[in-house]
Amino acid sequence: MGSISFKIEKKMEGLGRAGVLTTPHGTIQTPAFVTVGTKATVKALTPEMVRDLGAQVVLANTYHLYLEPGDEIVRDAGGFGKFMNWSGPTMTDSGGFQVFSLGVAFGSKMGKLSKVGDVVVGEEIDAEDKAGKLAKIDEDGVTFKSYKDGSEHRFTPERSMEIQHNLGADIIFAFDECTSPAAPYEYQKEAMDRTHRWAKRSLDAHNLLGSPGLPRKQALFGVVQGGRHRDLREESARTLGAMDFDGYGIGGSFDKDDMDAAVGWVNAILPEDKPRHLLGIGEPVDLFGAVENGCDLFDCVAPTRTGRNGAVHTHDGRVNLLNARFVRDFTPIDPECDCYTCKNYTRAYLAHLFRSDEMLAATLASIHNLRFLVRLVNQMREAILGGTFETLKTNFLTRYYKK
Amino acid sequence: MGSISFKIEKKMEGLGRAGVLTTPHGTIQTPAFVTVGTKATVKALTPEMVRDLGAQVVLANTYHLYLEPGDEIVRDAGGFGKFMNWSGPTMTDSGGFQVFSLGVAFGSKMGKLSKVGDVVVGEEIDAEDKAGKLAKIDEDGVTFKSYKDGSEHRFTPERSMEIQHNLGADIIFAFDECTSPAAPYEYQKEAMDRTHRWAKRSLDAHNLLGSPGLPRKQALFGVVQGGRHRDLREESARTLGAMDFDGYGIGGSFDKDDMDAAVGWVNAILPEDKPRHLLGIGEPVDLFGAVENGCDLFDCVAPTRTGRNGAVHTHDGRVNLLNARFVRDFTPIDPECDCYTCKNYTRAYLAHLFRSDEMLAATLASIHNLRFLVRLVNQMREAILGGTFETLKTNFLTRYYKK
Repeated sequence: MGSISFKIEKKMEGLGRAGVLTTPHGTIQTPAFVTVGTKATVKALTPEMVRDLGAQVVLANTYHLYLEPGDEIVRDAGGFGKFMNWSGPTMTDSGGFQVFSLGVAFGSKMGKLSKVGDVVVGEEIDAEDKAGKLAKIDEDGVTFKSYKDGSEHRFTPERSMEIQHNLGADIIFAFDECTSPAAPYEYQKEAMDRTHRWAKRSLDAHNLLGSPGLPRKQALFGVVQGGRHRDLREESARTLGAMDFDGYGIGGSFDKDDMDAAVGWVNAILPEDKPRHLLGIGEPVDLFGAVENGCDLFDCVAPTRTGRNGAVHTHDGRVNLLNARFVRDFTPIDPECDCYTCKNYTRAYLAHLFRSDEMLAATLASIHNLRFLVRLVNQMREAILGGTFETLKTNFLTRYYKK
Repeated sequence: MGSISFKIEKKMEGLGRAGVLTTPHGTIQTPAFVTVGTKATVKALTPEMVRDLGAQVVLANTYHLYLEPGDEIVRDAGGFGKFMNWSGPTMTDSGGFQVFSLGVAFGSKMGKLSKVGDVVVGEEIDAEDKAGKLAKIDEDGVTFKSYKDGSEHRFTPERSMEIQHNLGADIIFAFDECTSPAAPYEYQKEAMDRTHRWAKRSLDAHNLLGSPGLPRKQALFGVVQGGRHRDLREESARTLGAMDFDGYGIGGSFDKDDMDAAVGWVNAILPEDKPRHLLGIGEPVDLFGAVENGCDLFDCVAPTRTGRNGAVHTHDGRVNLLNARFVRDFTPIDPECDCYTCKNYTRAYLAHLFRSDEMLAATLASIHNLRFLVRLVNQMREAILGGTFETLKTNFLTRYYKK
């Protein structure tokens, strides 16, 4: 192996831990919030802004970069980090989630947990036969239509590895099938078994694509699935945990109420010395749950996506800057926040920018929301190191959710 | 007096000069390209980006800030510079140009010289009576409908001064009537005479609004009009030149081919020791013409507006980044450019951002275009100081326009 290394610095009671993940492009102090740069850009931000708000790592989406500009252009540019001028650690996802969510939910609003519920599963079904169904799964892979132009494409574990090698991130993910939390047990098991076979094929393809005998340049994470079922989650963690992955992703096919338990089942089994990434989580309460249940990394588009719509985090909960009461409010979004936006701009100015459809609104709100979550996860890390995690959690959640 | 001072450092043969304009918020080395921040934001840029690309001064539009968020909110925020976190010199225009262009051309694309041609002039005509005509002029002022919601508003010289005092820029402009270059001579004269009466009223209102007996906090520029007619332009320069303005704007009601001549007629008459701002000019060839004919300042939205559409300046002319040939071009926009964009990003990356509708595209292209023009005008200044203006002009224009 050798492309990354992971060292646990401190364990708290239960599963939570603080560590350091070393990559070819620098270290990540964990737990860490991973910033999403879907198309090799964190929307509305320069890489300097991303760095200055404390982000340690950027995750790009394989599905999007494969479709545009194409993974070979990104390869020729020197990988997506160089392409976008981000010199720090990088990740790409497997493409699976978008194939199953965007491939199916073409044209409709995206929402992680609900959207995967409509995926076409089981036997080969022609995508066009069902209104809006644009993906079909077989044992070998997935055929899907582009969300952009309807053109047909195919991902297999081998193709995902090839694309992710071209994209060149430090950490990449095995190709997995994302199921709906609403899918029946039998299908969850069938999909999980297929994900395990795809995981093995991803690993083999990854090793073939690398330089045999030399340390890997990219680290590969397997993705644990199994829905909300304890036996499946545990089986998935055992099966993948026995394979030679550098770390693990945990797929989010469960209802939010089941998340903490499902993550706990998995992390009690996964090898302790390898990093764990919970995919697609960004709500403060979920971050606390994931950290205390042993996750090290989390990514989510929510802070930038909701920020672009004017919704911003404060220690007293989320507010929307388009609300009339902010038009003459000459205080920062959150007086306790240390971000660039809060140090330099008022709610009144942001309200003006949002009402005027000025692009700077998206930039300033995204900086604030990302900084808020990055800092919150940093605080969790400090609290683990200092033995004060429960106090931080109680104080933060009580105030944020007014419970 | 007292709020600004202007010192000429070097005169070239003819009317051109290099100088230093000192304002309460810092000095401006002239000639200087003025960056437009219409709604108290230079679109898609932070103030730090504006400063880092070498911009010395930001001009906001009175019309837009009056409508949104309203000049009293900007006043309560400490003026538009503080509101937007720009600590350098600031200007606001009189609101006249937008009243006459946006007020009339509601819903259509804006183009400076052509659009003012449709203005409703002369007798009071109800705006609603004529399709799309939304402004009416009388001796006292202009009644117009908001481009946003159709609500009715009225600007007079006194109201423009009151609003501009609320907006709080270092340099403000007298309220003027903007005519079409196509308007007949008789109307140009009538409008010019009215602009002169409005100039006197602006000056009186400005003095009343200030603190009597104390130095002015804001400098007031009169605006020379008169279309493309030499006798009118000269009369306007003489009339306004005799008034106690701190500097002069030159309104752009002439065809591009007439610009150099018209500017020359005016600047041969205006007091030499006061700064001159040619309103709304941003094409390289026009900047050369304006500088050699004695203008010190110029503003234009073109670099940011065209940049947002993918059109960028290079020393070899303008190119559009959406062109297919840039998709695999891993060189910067202009290898001779020293801007943030050219130092860190390739044409291929920008092509990807534009094709993906990513906001960062607008940011990076705007930085480049503004830096290109700011640097070009800085080079003109250096060339005036060094006696090499003609060489710079010939070399640049030959290559840029491939003539």
